[in-house]
Amino acid sequence: MIIYDWPTGPYPARVRIALAEKALQSRVRFVSVNLWKGEHKTPSFLAKNYSGTLPVLQLDDGTLIAECTAITEYLDALDGPPTLTGLTARDKGLIHMMSKRAELELLDAISVYFHHATPGLGPEVEIYQNPEWGFRQRDKALRGMRYFDSVLKAQPFVAGEVFSMADITVIGGLIFAGLVDLPVPADCEALQAWYAGMQERPSVKNRVTMSQPAEACV
Amino acid sequence: MIIYDWPTGPYPARVRIALAEKALQSRVRFVSVNLWKGEHKTPSFLAKNYSGTLPVLQLDDGTLIAECTAITEYLDALDGPPTLTGLTARDKGLIHMMSKRAELELLDAISVYFHHATPGLGPEVEIYQNPEWGFRQRDKALRGMRYFDSVLKAQPFVAGEVFSMADITVIGGLIFAGLVDLPVPADCEALQAWYAGMQERPSVKNRVTMSQPAEACV
Repeated sequence: MIIYDWPTGPYPARVRIALAEKALQSRVRFVSVNLWKGEHKTPSFLAKNYSGTLPVLQLDDGTLIAECTAITEYLDALDGPPTLTGLTARDKGLIHMMSKRAELELLDAISVYFHHATPGLGPEVEIYQNPEWGFRQRDKALRGMRYFDSVLKAQPFVAGEVFSMADITVIGGLIFAGLVDLPVPADCEALQAWYAGMQERPSVKNRVTMSQPAEACV
Repeated sequence: MIIYDWPTGPYPARVRIALAEKALQSRVRFVSVNLWKGEHKTPSFLAKNYSGTLPVLQLDDGTLIAECTAITEYLDALDGPPTLTGLTARDKGLIHMMSKRAELELLDAISVYFHHATPGLGPEVEIYQNPEWGFRQRDKALRGMRYFDSVLKAQPFVAGEVFSMADITVIGGLIFAGLVDLPVPADCEALQAWYAGMQERPSVKNRVTMSQPAEACV
Protein backbone atom coordinates (compact mmCIF):
# COMPACT_ATOMS: atom_id res chain seq x y z
CA MET A 1 0.00 0.00 0.00
CA ILE A 2 1.05 3.60 -0.58
CA ILE A 3 0.18 6.54 1.64
CA TYR A 4 0.37 9.96 0.03
CA ASP A 5 0.88 12.43 2.82
CA TRP A 6 3.10 15.08 4.39
CA PRO A 7 4.95 13.90 7.50
CA THR A 8 4.10 16.80 9.80
CA GLY A 9 0.50 17.36 8.70
CA PRO A 10 -2.23 17.02 11.35
CA TYR A 11 -4.56 15.00 9.12
CA PRO A 12 -1.74 12.69 7.97
CA ALA A 13 -0.97 12.23 11.67
CA ARG A 14 -4.37 10.60 12.14
CA VAL A 15 -3.58 7.85 9.67
CA ARG A 16 0.03 7.47 10.83
CA ILE A 17 -1.16 6.97 14.40
CA ALA A 18 -3.81 4.47 13.28
CA LEU A 19 -1.20 2.56 11.27
CA ALA A 20 1.14 2.34 14.23
CA GLU A 21 -1.63 1.34 16.64
CA LYS A 22 -2.53 -1.46 14.22
CA ALA A 23 1.19 -2.34 13.71
CA LEU A 24 0.74 -2.02 9.96
CA GLN A 25 3.59 0.42 9.23
CA SER A 26 5.70 -2.19 7.46
CA ARG A 27 2.96 -2.76 4.87
CA VAL A 28 2.98 0.86 3.76
CA ARG A 29 5.26 2.97 1.61
CA PHE A 30 5.02 6.75 2.12
CA VAL A 31 5.10 9.23 -0.76
CA SER A 32 5.36 12.89 0.19
CA VAL A 33 3.07 15.51 -1.28
CA ASN A 34 4.46 18.93 -0.38
CA LEU A 35 1.66 20.95 1.20
CA TRP A 36 3.80 24.11 1.30
CA LYS A 37 4.24 23.96 -2.47
CA GLY A 38 0.55 23.27 -2.99
CA GLU A 39 1.24 19.87 -4.56
CA HIS A 40 -2.12 18.66 -3.14
CA LYS A 41 -3.92 21.16 -5.37
CA THR A 42 -2.29 20.14 -8.66
CA PRO A 43 -4.39 18.41 -11.35
CA SER A 44 -2.43 15.19 -10.98
CA PHE A 45 -3.13 15.01 -7.27
CA LEU A 46 -6.75 16.11 -7.65
CA ALA A 47 -7.19 13.12 -9.94
CA LYS A 48 -6.29 10.98 -6.90
CA ASN A 49 -8.48 12.90 -4.48
CA TYR A 50 -11.13 15.27 -5.81
CA SER A 51 -11.14 17.20 -2.52
CA GLY A 52 -7.41 17.95 -2.72
CA THR A 53 -6.58 16.85 0.81
CA LEU A 54 -4.05 14.55 2.45
CA PRO A 55 -3.66 11.73 3.26
CA VAL A 56 -4.69 9.29 0.53
CA LEU A 57 -4.23 5.53 0.72
CA GLN A 58 -3.58 3.62 -2.49
CA LEU A 59 -4.17 -0.11 -2.36
CA ASP A 60 -2.08 -2.56 -4.32
CA ASP A 61 -4.88 -2.89 -6.91
CA GLY A 62 -4.77 0.88 -7.47
CA THR A 63 -7.92 1.69 -5.47
CA LEU A 64 -7.65 5.14 -3.90
CA ILE A 65 -9.13 5.83 -0.47
CA ALA A 66 -9.15 9.41 0.83
CA GLU A 67 -10.51 10.83 4.09
CA CYS A 68 -9.01 9.85 7.45
CA THR A 69 -12.14 8.15 8.76
CA ALA A 70 -12.44 6.06 5.60
CA ILE A 71 -8.77 5.07 5.69
CA THR A 72 -9.06 4.17 9.37
CA GLU A 73 -12.15 2.05 8.63
CA TYR A 74 -10.16 0.26 5.92
CA LEU A 75 -7.13 -0.38 8.13
CA ASP A 76 -9.30 -1.45 11.05
CA ALA A 77 -11.12 -4.03 8.93
CA LEU A 78 -7.83 -5.73 8.07
CA ASP A 79 -6.86 -8.50 10.42
CA GLY A 80 -5.64 -7.99 13.93
CA PRO A 81 -6.33 -6.06 17.13
CA PRO A 82 -6.65 -3.48 18.55
CA THR A 83 -10.00 -2.27 17.25
CA LEU A 84 -10.09 1.47 16.61
CA THR A 85 -13.66 1.84 15.28
CA GLY A 86 -15.58 -0.39 17.69
CA LEU A 87 -16.91 -3.93 17.72
CA THR A 88 -20.48 -3.53 18.92
CA ALA A 89 -23.16 -1.37 17.31
CA ARG A 90 -23.12 0.97 20.32
CA ASP A 91 -19.35 1.35 20.29
CA LYS A 92 -19.27 1.94 16.54
CA GLY A 93 -21.94 4.62 16.91
CA LEU A 94 -20.23 6.36 19.81
CA ILE A 95 -16.77 6.27 18.25
CA HIS A 96 -18.00 7.64 14.92
CA MET A 97 -20.00 10.33 16.71
CA MET A 98 -17.10 11.50 18.84
CA SER A 99 -14.64 11.38 15.96
CA LYS A 100 -16.95 13.44 13.76
CA ARG A 101 -17.54 15.83 16.64
CA ALA A 102 -13.77 16.19 17.05
CA GLU A 103 -13.56 17.13 13.38
CA LEU A 104 -16.43 19.62 13.50
CA GLU A 105 -15.63 21.27 16.79
CA LEU A 106 -11.84 21.11 16.86
CA LEU A 107 -9.71 19.81 13.99
CA ASP A 108 -11.64 21.14 11.00
CA ALA A 109 -12.31 24.41 12.83
CA ILE A 110 -8.58 24.92 13.42
CA SER A 111 -7.88 24.03 9.81
CA VAL A 112 -10.27 26.76 8.62
CA TYR A 113 -8.65 29.21 11.04
CA PHE A 114 -5.21 28.31 9.69
CA HIS A 115 -6.19 28.59 6.03
CA HIS A 116 -8.38 31.69 6.35
CA ALA A 117 -7.15 33.86 9.23
CA THR A 118 -3.39 33.23 9.22
CA PRO A 119 -0.92 33.18 6.30
CA GLY A 120 -1.68 29.46 6.12
CA LEU A 121 0.37 27.71 3.45
CA GLY A 122 1.38 31.05 1.89
CA PRO A 123 -0.09 33.33 -0.76
CA GLU A 124 0.46 30.96 -3.66
CA VAL A 125 -1.59 28.20 -2.04
CA GLU A 126 -4.17 30.27 -0.14
CA ILE A 127 -5.75 31.91 -3.15
CA TYR A 128 -8.94 32.79 -1.27
CA GLN A 129 -9.23 33.69 2.40
CA ASN A 130 -12.18 34.72 4.56
CA PRO A 131 -10.56 35.96 7.79
CA GLU A 132 -13.85 36.69 9.55
CA TRP A 133 -14.92 33.08 9.06
CA GLY A 134 -11.47 31.90 10.10
CA PHE A 135 -11.57 33.77 13.42
CA ARG A 136 -15.08 32.43 14.13
CA GLN A 137 -13.73 28.94 13.65
CA ARG A 138 -10.81 29.64 15.98
CA ASP A 139 -13.26 30.62 18.69
CA LYS A 140 -15.33 27.52 17.96
CA ALA A 141 -12.21 25.37 18.39
CA LEU A 142 -11.48 26.96 21.76
CA ARG A 143 -15.04 26.12 22.85
CA GLY A 144 -14.44 22.64 21.47
CA MET A 145 -11.42 22.24 23.74
CA ARG A 146 -13.63 23.03 26.73
CA TYR A 147 -16.19 20.52 25.53
CA PHE A 148 -13.61 17.73 25.21
CA ASP A 149 -12.22 18.70 28.60
CA SER A 150 -15.68 18.11 30.07
CA VAL A 151 -15.87 14.75 28.29
CA LEU A 152 -12.48 13.69 29.63
CA LYS A 153 -13.38 14.71 33.15
CA ALA A 154 -15.97 11.92 33.08
CA GLN A 155 -14.19 9.13 31.19
CA PRO A 156 -10.60 8.13 30.35
CA PHE A 157 -10.91 8.25 26.55
CA VAL A 158 -12.85 10.40 24.12
CA ALA A 159 -15.46 7.77 23.27
CA GLY A 160 -15.50 5.94 26.60
CA GLU A 161 -13.35 3.35 28.33
CA VAL A 162 -10.93 2.42 25.53
CA PHE A 163 -8.62 4.17 23.10
CA SER A 164 -10.25 4.62 19.68
CA MET A 165 -10.35 6.56 16.42
CA ALA A 166 -12.08 9.36 18.35
CA ASP A 167 -8.96 9.87 20.48
CA ILE A 168 -6.86 10.00 17.33
CA THR A 169 -9.05 12.74 15.86
CA VAL A 170 -8.75 14.87 19.00
CA ILE A 171 -4.98 14.29 18.94
CA GLY A 172 -5.00 15.55 15.33
CA GLY A 173 -6.84 18.62 16.53
CA LEU A 174 -4.34 19.34 19.28
CA ILE A 175 -1.40 18.75 16.94
CA PHE A 176 -2.90 21.38 14.63
CA ALA A 177 -3.58 23.65 17.63
CA GLY A 178 0.12 23.42 18.48
CA LEU A 179 1.14 24.35 14.95
CA VAL A 180 -1.02 27.49 14.98
CA ASP A 181 -0.15 28.52 18.56
CA LEU A 182 -3.61 27.96 19.93
CA PRO A 183 -2.84 26.48 23.35
CA VAL A 184 -5.27 24.42 25.35
CA PRO A 185 -6.66 26.75 28.07
CA ALA A 186 -4.88 26.24 31.39
CA ASP A 187 -8.07 25.32 33.21
CA CYS A 188 -8.75 22.42 30.82
CA GLU A 189 -6.91 20.09 33.16
CA ALA A 190 -8.56 16.86 32.07
CA LEU A 191 -7.83 17.54 28.40
CA GLN A 192 -4.24 18.49 29.21
CA ALA A 193 -3.67 15.37 31.31
CA TRP A 194 -5.21 13.14 28.66
CA TYR A 195 -3.06 14.75 25.93
CA ALA A 196 0.10 14.33 27.99
CA GLY A 197 -0.71 10.64 28.19
CA MET A 198 -1.45 10.42 24.48
CA GLN A 199 1.89 12.02 23.61
CA GLU A 200 3.64 9.17 25.43
CA ARG A 201 2.12 6.59 23.11
CA PRO A 202 4.73 5.36 20.59
CA SER A 203 2.17 5.76 17.79
CA VAL A 204 1.92 9.46 18.56
CA LYS A 205 5.53 10.08 19.54
CA ASN A 206 7.08 8.50 16.46
CA ARG A 207 4.53 9.50 13.85
CA VAL A 208 6.67 12.04 11.95
CA THR A 209 9.72 9.81 11.65
CA MET A 210 7.62 6.77 10.73
CA SER A 211 8.36 7.26 7.05
CA GLN A 212 12.12 7.80 7.34
CA PRO A 213 13.93 7.20 5.11
CA ALA A 214 11.09 8.51 2.99
CA GLU A 215 11.50 8.25 -0.73
CA ALA A 216 10.54 11.80 -1.52
CA CYS A 217 10.48 13.92 1.59
CA VAL A 218 10.84 17.05 -0.49
CA MET B 1 -35.19 3.79 20.31
CA ILE B 2 -36.05 7.45 19.88
CA ILE B 3 -35.04 9.62 16.94
CA TYR B 4 -35.03 13.35 17.55
CA ASP B 5 -35.44 14.98 14.16
CA TRP B 6 -37.54 17.18 11.92
CA PRO B 7 -39.48 15.32 9.25
CA THR B 8 -38.50 17.41 6.23
CA GLY B 9 -34.87 18.05 7.15
CA PRO B 10 -32.17 16.86 4.73
CA TYR B 11 -29.94 15.42 7.45
CA PRO B 12 -32.88 13.68 9.17
CA ALA B 13 -33.67 12.25 5.73
CA ARG B 14 -30.37 10.37 5.76
CA VAL B 15 -31.27 8.45 8.89
CA ARG B 16 -34.92 7.96 7.86
CA ILE B 17 -33.77 6.43 4.57
CA ALA B 18 -31.25 4.20 6.35
CA LEU B 19 -33.94 3.06 8.80
CA ALA B 20 -36.31 2.15 5.97
CA GLU B 21 -33.60 0.37 3.97
CA LYS B 22 -32.84 -1.69 7.09
CA ALA B 23 -36.60 -2.18 7.78
CA LEU B 24 -36.11 -0.86 11.31
CA GLN B 25 -38.82 1.83 11.32
CA SER B 26 -41.05 -0.07 13.72
CA ARG B 27 -38.32 -0.05 16.38
CA VAL B 28 -38.14 3.74 16.45
CA ARG B 29 -40.29 6.47 17.91
CA PHE B 30 -39.87 9.94 16.40
CA VAL B 31 -39.80 13.12 18.46
CA SER B 32 -39.89 16.38 16.54
CA VAL B 33 -37.44 19.19 17.25
CA ASN B 34 -38.66 22.27 15.41
CA LEU B 35 -35.78 23.65 13.36
CA TRP B 36 -37.76 26.75 12.37
CA LYS B 37 -38.19 27.67 16.02
CA GLY B 38 -34.51 26.97 16.74
CA GLU B 39 -35.37 24.19 19.19
CA HIS B 40 -32.10 22.47 18.18
CA LYS B 41 -30.15 25.39 19.65
CA THR B 42 -31.81 25.41 23.10
CA PRO B 43 -29.78 24.39 26.17
CA SER B 44 -31.92 21.29 26.68
CA PHE B 45 -31.24 20.04 23.17
CA LEU B 46 -27.56 21.04 23.27
CA ALA B 47 -27.28 18.76 26.29
CA LYS B 48 -28.30 15.91 23.97
CA ASN B 49 -26.03 16.99 21.12
CA TYR B 50 -23.24 19.48 21.75
CA SER B 51 -23.16 20.41 18.06
CA GLY B 52 -26.84 21.37 18.02
CA THR B 53 -27.75 19.39 14.92
CA LEU B 54 -30.40 16.88 13.97
CA PRO B 55 -30.95 13.96 13.97
CA VAL B 56 -30.02 12.33 17.27
CA LEU B 57 -30.67 8.69 18.13
CA GLN B 58 -31.40 7.78 21.73
CA LEU B 59 -31.02 4.12 22.66
CA ASP B 60 -33.22 2.41 25.22
CA ASP B 61 -30.42 2.68 27.80
CA GLY B 62 -30.32 6.45 27.29
CA THR B 63 -27.15 6.53 25.17
CA LEU B 64 -27.24 9.42 22.71
CA ILE B 65 -25.76 9.05 19.23
CA ALA B 66 -25.57 12.13 16.99
CA GLU B 67 -24.16 12.52 13.47
CA CYS B 68 -25.73 10.72 10.51
CA THR B 69 -22.71 8.56 9.74
CA ALA B 70 -22.48 7.41 13.35
CA ILE B 71 -26.21 6.63 13.53
CA THR B 72 -25.98 4.73 10.24
CA GLU B 73 -23.02 2.75 11.56
CA TYR B 74 -25.06 1.88 14.65
CA LEU B 75 -28.13 0.80 12.67
CA ASP B 76 -26.04 -1.14 10.19
CA ALA B 77 -24.34 -3.11 12.94
CA LEU B 78 -27.71 -4.34 14.21
CA ASP B 79 -28.83 -7.63 12.72
CA GLY B 80 -30.05 -8.01 9.19
CA PRO B 81 -29.29 -7.08 5.59
CA PRO B 82 -28.86 -5.02 3.51
CA THR B 83 -25.45 -3.67 4.44
CA LEU B 84 -25.14 0.08 4.03
CA THR B 85 -21.56 0.63 5.23
CA GLY B 86 -19.77 -2.28 3.54
CA LEU B 87 -18.63 -5.75 4.51
CA THR B 88 -15.03 -5.88 3.28
CA ALA B 89 -12.24 -3.50 4.23
CA ARG B 90 -12.18 -2.09 0.69
CA ASP B 91 -15.94 -1.52 0.59
CA LYS B 92 -15.95 0.09 4.04
CA GLY B 93 -13.16 2.41 2.96
CA LEU B 94 -14.79 3.37 -0.33
CA ILE B 95 -18.25 3.90 1.18
CA HIS B 96 -16.92 6.07 4.00
CA MET B 97 -14.79 8.06 1.56
CA MET B 98 -17.65 8.74 -0.84
CA SER B 99 -20.09 9.53 1.95
CA LYS B 100 -17.66 12.01 3.50
CA ARG B 101 -16.98 13.48 0.07
CA ALA B 102 -20.72 13.89 -0.45
CA GLU B 103 -20.86 15.82 2.83
CA LEU B 104 -17.86 18.02 2.04
CA GLU B 105 -18.60 18.74 -1.59
CA LEU B 106 -22.39 18.76 -1.63
CA LEU B 107 -24.58 18.41 1.46
CA ASP B 108 -22.55 20.43 3.98
CA ALA B 109 -21.73 23.03 1.33
CA ILE B 110 -25.44 23.55 0.58
CA SER B 111 -26.15 23.73 4.29
CA VAL B 112 -23.62 26.54 4.69
CA TYR B 113 -25.13 28.32 1.68
CA PHE B 114 -28.61 28.00 3.21
CA HIS B 115 -27.59 29.23 6.65
CA HIS B 116 -25.25 32.00 5.49
CA ALA B 117 -26.38 33.35 2.11
CA THR B 118 -30.18 32.95 2.27
CA PRO B 119 -32.63 33.84 5.08
CA GLY B 120 -32.06 30.27 6.29
CA LEU B 121 -34.16 29.45 9.33
CA GLY B 122 -35.00 33.12 9.88
CA PRO B 123 -33.39 36.00 11.81
CA GLU B 124 -34.04 34.54 15.24
CA VAL B 125 -32.13 31.34 14.48
CA GLU B 126 -29.48 32.67 12.08
CA ILE B 127 -27.79 34.99 14.55
CA TYR B 128 -24.57 35.14 12.52
CA GLN B 129 -24.27 34.97 8.74
CA ASN B 130 -21.29 35.21 6.40
CA PRO B 131 -22.87 35.59 2.94
CA GLU B 132 -19.56 35.62 1.07
CA TRP B 133 -18.68 32.25 2.55
CA GLY B 134 -22.19 31.00 1.85
CA PHE B 135 -22.01 31.87 -1.85
CA ARG B 136 -18.58 30.22 -2.13
CA GLN B 137 -20.09 27.07 -0.71
CA ARG B 138 -23.00 27.24 -3.16
CA ASP B 139 -20.52 27.31 -6.03
CA LYS B 140 -18.61 24.43 -4.45
CA ALA B 141 -21.83 22.41 -4.29
CA LEU B 142 -22.50 23.03 -7.97
CA ARG B 143 -19.01 21.75 -8.77
CA GLY B 144 -19.75 18.83 -6.48
CA MET B 145 -22.81 17.96 -8.56
CA ARG B 146 -20.59 17.79 -11.64
CA TYR B 147 -18.16 15.58 -9.79
CA PHE B 148 -20.86 13.11 -8.72
CA ASP B 149 -22.24 13.19 -12.25
CA SER B 150 -18.83 12.03 -13.48
CA VAL B 151 -18.78 9.28 -10.84
CA LEU B 152 -22.23 8.06 -11.85
CA LYS B 153 -21.29 8.02 -15.51
CA ALA B 154 -18.86 5.24 -14.65
CA GLN B 155 -20.77 3.17 -12.08
CA PRO B 156 -24.40 2.64 -11.02
CA PHE B 157 -24.06 3.78 -7.40
CA VAL B 158 -21.99 6.43 -5.64
CA ALA B 159 -19.51 4.01 -4.08
CA GLY B 160 -19.60 1.31 -6.77
CA GLU B 161 -21.89 -1.54 -7.74
CA VAL B 162 -24.32 -1.53 -4.81
CA PHE B 163 -26.53 0.95 -2.96
CA SER B 164 -24.85 2.25 0.22
CA MET B 165 -24.63 4.99 2.80
CA ALA B 166 -22.78 7.06 0.19
CA ASP B 167 -25.88 7.12 -2.03
CA ILE B 168 -27.95 8.22 0.95
CA THR B 169 -25.60 11.14 1.62
CA VAL B 170 -25.82 12.34 -1.98
CA ILE B 171 -29.61 11.98 -1.79
CA GLY B 172 -29.51 14.20 1.32
CA GLY B 173 -27.51 16.72 -0.68
CA LEU B 174 -30.00 16.78 -3.53
CA ILE B 175 -32.95 17.01 -1.13
CA PHE B 176 -31.30 20.10 0.36
CA ALA B 177 -30.53 21.41 -3.14
CA GLY B 178 -34.24 21.15 -3.94
CA LEU B 179 -35.19 23.07 -0.80
CA VAL B 180 -32.86 25.96 -1.69
CA ASP B 181 -33.71 26.00 -5.41
CA LEU B 182 -30.30 24.89 -6.56
CA PRO B 183 -31.16 22.58 -9.42
CA VAL B 184 -28.83 19.92 -10.76
CA PRO B 185 -27.36 21.32 -14.00
CA ALA B 186 -29.19 20.03 -17.07
CA ASP B 187 -26.07 18.47 -18.54
CA CYS B 188 -25.50 16.31 -15.45
CA GLU B 189 -27.49 13.52 -17.06
CA ALA B 190 -26.01 10.64 -15.11
CA LEU B 191 -26.66 12.35 -11.77
CA GLN B 192 -30.21 13.22 -12.83
CA ALA B 193 -30.96 9.67 -14.00
CA TRP B 194 -29.52 8.19 -10.82
CA TYR B 195 -31.55 10.61 -8.66
CA ALA B 196 -34.76 9.79 -10.54
CA GLY B 197 -34.14 6.14 -9.71
CA MET B 198 -33.39 6.93 -6.08
CA GLN B 199 -36.63 8.87 -5.70
CA GLU B 200 -38.54 5.73 -6.68
CA ARG B 201 -37.14 3.81 -3.72
CA PRO B 202 -39.79 3.46 -0.99
CA SER B 203 -37.19 4.48 1.63
CA VAL B 204 -36.76 7.82 -0.14
CA LYS B 205 -40.33 8.34 -1.29
CA ASN B 206 -41.93 7.75 2.11
CA ARG B 207 -39.32 9.31 4.35
CA VAL B 208 -41.31 12.37 5.47
CA THR B 209 -44.47 10.48 6.36
CA MET B 210 -42.53 7.69 8.09
CA SER B 211 -43.20 9.22 11.49
CA GLN B 212 -46.94 9.82 11.06
CA PRO B 213 -48.78 9.96 13.35
CA ALA B 214 -45.83 11.62 15.08
CA GLU B 215 -46.23 12.48 18.71
CA ALA B 216 -45.10 16.04 18.45
CA CYS B 217 -44.98 17.15 14.82
CA VAL B 218 -45.25 20.77 15.84
